Amino acid sequence: MSTTRFALAQIDTCVGDLDGNAAKVIATTRMARERADVVVFPEMTLTGYPIEDLALRATFREAAWNKANELAAQLESEGMGGLYVVVGTVGTDHANGKPRNRLVVLHGGLVWAGYDKHFLPNYGVFDEFRIFSAGERHVVLSIDGVRVGLAICEDIWQDGGPVAELAAEHIDVLLTINGSPYEEGKTQIRLDLARRRAAEVHAPMIYVNQVGGQDDLVFDGGTFVVDTDGTLLQRSPMFMEDLAYFTLDTDREHQEVCEVAPRMDPDEEVYTACVLGLKDYMAKNGFTGVCLGLSGGIDSALVAAMAADAVGGGNVYGISMPSMYSSQGSKDDAADLAANIGTHYDVQPIKPMYDAFQQQLALDGVSAENLQARIRGVIVMAYSNSKGVLALATGNKSELACGYSTIYGDAVGGYAPIKDVFKTKVWQLARWRNSAAAAGMGVGGLHIVGNEAGDAGVQLPGGVMIPVNSITKAPSAELRPGQKDSDSLPQYELLDRVLEAYIEHAHGRADLLADGFDDETVSTVIRLVDRAEWKRRQYPLGPKVSALAFGRDRRLPVTGAFRE
Amino acid sequence: MSTTRFALAQIDTCVGDLDGNAAKVIATTRMARERADVVVFPEMTLTGYPIEDLALRATFREAAWNKANELAAQLESEGMGGLYVVVGTVGTDHANGKPRNRLVVLHGGLVWAGYDKHFLPNYGVFDEFRIFSAGERHVVLSIDGVRVGLAICEDIWQDGGPVAELAAEHIDVLLTINGSPYEEGKTQIRLDLARRRAAEVHAPMIYVNQVGGQDDLVFDGGTFVVDTDGTLLQRSPMFMEDLAYFTLDTDREHQEVCEVAPRMDPDEEVYTACVLGLKDYMAKNGFTGVCLGLSGGIDSALVAAMAADAVGGGNVYGISMPSMYSSQGSKDDAADLAANIGTHYDVQPIKPMYDAFQQQLALDGVSAENLQARIRGVIVMAYSNSKGVLALATGNKSELACGYSTIYGDAVGGYAPIKDVFKTKVWQLARWRNSAAAAGMGVGGLHIVGNEAGDAGVQLPGGVMIPVNSITKAPSAELRPGQKDSDSLPQYELLDRVLEAYIEHAHGRADLLADGFDDETVSTVIRLVDRAEWKRRQYPLGPKVSALAFGRDRRLPVTGAFRE
Repeated sequence: MSTTRFALAQIDTCVGDLDGNAAKVIATTRMARERADVVVFPEMTLTGYPIEDLALRATFREAAWNKANELAAQLESEGMGGLYVVVGTVGTDHANGKPRNRLVVLHGGLVWAGYDKHFLPNYGVFDEFRIFSAGERHVVLSIDGVRVGLAICEDIWQDGGPVAELAAEHIDVLLTINGSPYEEGKTQIRLDLARRRAAEVHAPMIYVNQVGGQDDLVFDGGTFVVDTDGTLLQRSPMFMEDLAYFTLDTDREHQEVCEVAPRMDPDEEVYTACVLGLKDYMAKNGFTGVCLGLSGGIDSALVAAMAADAVGGGNVYGISMPSMYSSQGSKDDAADLAANIGTHYDVQPIKPMYDAFQQQLALDGVSAENLQARIRGVIVMAYSNSKGVLALATGNKSELACGYSTIYGDAVGGYAPIKDVFKTKVWQLARWRNSAAAAGMGVGGLHIVGNEAGDAGVQLPGGVMIPVNSITKAPSAELRPGQKDSDSLPQYELLDRVLEAYIEHAHGRADLLADGFDDETVSTVIRLVDRAEWKRRQYPLGPKVSALAFGRDRRLPVTGAFRE
Repeated sequence: MSTTRFALAQIDTCVGDLDGNAAKVIATTRMARERADVVVFPEMTLTGYPIEDLALRATFREAAWNKANELAAQLESEGMGGLYVVVGTVGTDHANGKPRNRLVVLHGGLVWAGYDKHFLPNYGVFDEFRIFSAGERHVVLSIDGVRVGLAICEDIWQDGGPVAELAAEHIDVLLTINGSPYEEGKTQIRLDLARRRAAEVHAPMIYVNQVGGQDDLVFDGGTFVVDTDGTLLQRSPMFMEDLAYFTLDTDREHQEVCEVAPRMDPDEEVYTACVLGLKDYMAKNGFTGVCLGLSGGIDSALVAAMAADAVGGGNVYGISMPSMYSSQGSKDDAADLAANIGTHYDVQPIKPMYDAFQQQLALDGVSAENLQARIRGVIVMAYSNSKGVLALATGNKSELACGYSTIYGDAVGGYAPIKDVFKTKVWQLARWRNSAAAAGMGVGGLHIVGNEAGDAGVQLPGGVMIPVNSITKAPSAELRPGQKDSDSLPQYELLDRVLEAYIEHAHGRADLLADGFDDETVSTVIRLVDRAEWKRRQYPLGPKVSALAFGRDRRLPVTGAFRE
């Protein structure tokens, strides 16, 4: 037989949930059993990914090992022992007792130790060299005479190593399992890379990626297959679970093209990543609802829209907390938004509490401004506690980078859906969501994991989601009369460009001036960013959507940081 | 000449402060110039340590390189060019552009590239493999014919590598520069290790360590020299800057014993580490005062005592925030403590604010308990903002591990002095501090960096610091009538032993039962610890004093963590 049928199982796993992940492998394999010889799951399927220091617990590794054996036995007992089921898990390096990032093959009721990841990424969000020891040998799996080369994620991102060795092995296909987090623009980069590797090993390449949110990462899926000549043969949709099929015919020079999902609109991509990150964070932590302050501003409006898309407006508690400095426009905008997306909506004026504090403390200036924000933080957390819902922080990446927020005030929350979205992009996403609403996409109409039906969602009355006024008005914290963000920060269009150069591209002061930014702006931004590290470290988790997110993928000292 | 005179400069550097660190090298070298041929500074002297991802900024590396050259030129211009000044800094690997952890020698007005660290620790608090590329070559420095082998910190902790190679090099002395953070019991471990390495290279070994707090690490100094046969020849005191001397006479089989500082009492050691961590965090962030809530309980009493020892009672703002559930005893204890250590002391009853919130929110149960803690958090932050002082979180490691605290309530603060101290140890440290007070050690009488005078400090009126009642009474959060910690947690004597086994020794459920702990306790502790990860991640920085602190040296997923 010259054809081998691969099922590509793009699933959403949960870190540490060995039972749940194994159950998903079984259920998915049942679905694929008639149409596939090989069923391929993502990196570290059984354990979830990334498992971080959990891998260092011997008891966890033992439990994972037992679970793999149990799984193999169950597949066999259900008559699926003839399939080759490729899963990722954690192994142990018997030479030094360290964990390994391992691919195993379940077949004939047994666990066949397969391949150990060679390149262990240790940059950005990745801590793998910290945890794992590296595999040394490349592996070719022979399935009824078809030679399948194996690799795990980072192995294809580095030159040399196992993939280079496989080039001399006359393999029929390169099979890679991945846990590759989403970032803007990565789809094309992955595809280009895969084309290079397919050419290098002279064989088609299969790329199976996990999907779903895990803490502050979002995995976009986007599983695909490229032919030896670079032709895209298959592509799964992003942000949803998917079971796709690819048939390898070793008698053919070129493989047959299967279903290729279209690319998403770039704004839709980021918006959906944020929604999925939130939805999965809630699901994996046992939350069914959220609460957040609705100020009438664009940040809270966008986050509320995302929350409604993730779990439905009826599971969102929007709290308007006006002060003496809140404009009527802001109050109206908050109410309109809540009505549009169907959230619970309460008004909790903060003046009585503010007066009670001020009676004793008599604060002024920034201290009095922070007091307002912190009273709101207490109210949001009171809703979170009493209703058992997740509090959302609504800060964006621009203000987070600059420390333009009140710690324990507007920064409170268990999850921060737009922490990696610059302010200018916040406006863009709001506009995109409104245009999707106008085109008929109701609340919950996104195609994401757990919403596979993918209908148009709950229709919006006026076909608009986010009040236009929230998008167009000048941003203000409304903590004193007439306050505008631009009193403290450069205009966001300018600020975001400086932030991108300073943070994402690591430009120093001289570079920034050479980029054409003026000295005052550069000095302001550098001073703000360098001082905000401590605040950022206390900020809730949120989905990474850019190449360089604040948080775990950027580690800076708090004290005495270098001033550019 | 057969003798070489080494000055061992145990200094406190600040990360990123190239100017300040270079100035300290100059000043220290001036002091040593008449008595030394070689002046040795700690690991990464110029940059501070650990610099984390700051090393990845090309502009920072360039600035460090320029600073090293400037420093060499200045030494020369001051007539100190004849000395060999050994400093640590960041270099660049020209093969791949990655940073290197480098030792350089300043001599004759020039920077002599010396040795690049070979073993890059990437466990616990260390992220070096993430940042640096590894040096490949061992180096022997020849100073007037005396052969000096070089190593940097982790190089001596791993077998093999450069130290093993130096064994064949007939060196006269092994010179190591270190940035080795404090943990309980490490002094002896380091000494034993050094003895092994000295024997291995057949030469005396010099161990120069940095001292001082840097973010959540405390470096204890404790610089020392051991002879080839393991004899301790010199030891500097811990927790203070020190300039010691050691003369190597290559004609002698055994070197002469110099000054050996005595070991500290174990409780004094931990207490002093916490005080130094706080003092340096303040100094390096520009704070001169602190504020904290004084509940009358032992945690806040101990933290207040530490703060007074760090910066003087007059720079401490103690705030009593009684509620309807606060006992008279607690209020008296708080007032007594404040009087003993001479802090500012304000009473801010929380009932008016509590009533204002409850008028609108009508919370009950845990939500109402959290509300009290959060009102206190707002007040503490109001003091922090309005007085420009650092807010201290007073939680201990036991409650932090179990999540027994209110996020944005008692957990607020910029620094948490006892976050790595178990509750049973909190009592022990309080007793130690009181016995030191009884023996005449007043407020500020500790021997730490910046307090080198080391007099008895400001005398306490009654010779007691922490009210005995705060130490002896049953711990309570006083958030509802008659509440005791033991309602929610096992007794601390038991809890701390389970925590130590579960966290520090990574014992699983089966191990814990085999350790003799009962099933109910084990289940309770595991459930609490596994659920508290998110809260811990939001907790302020605090000094590491144990082998395994929560925080940066333990990375766990928040979502779906493995249940033992």
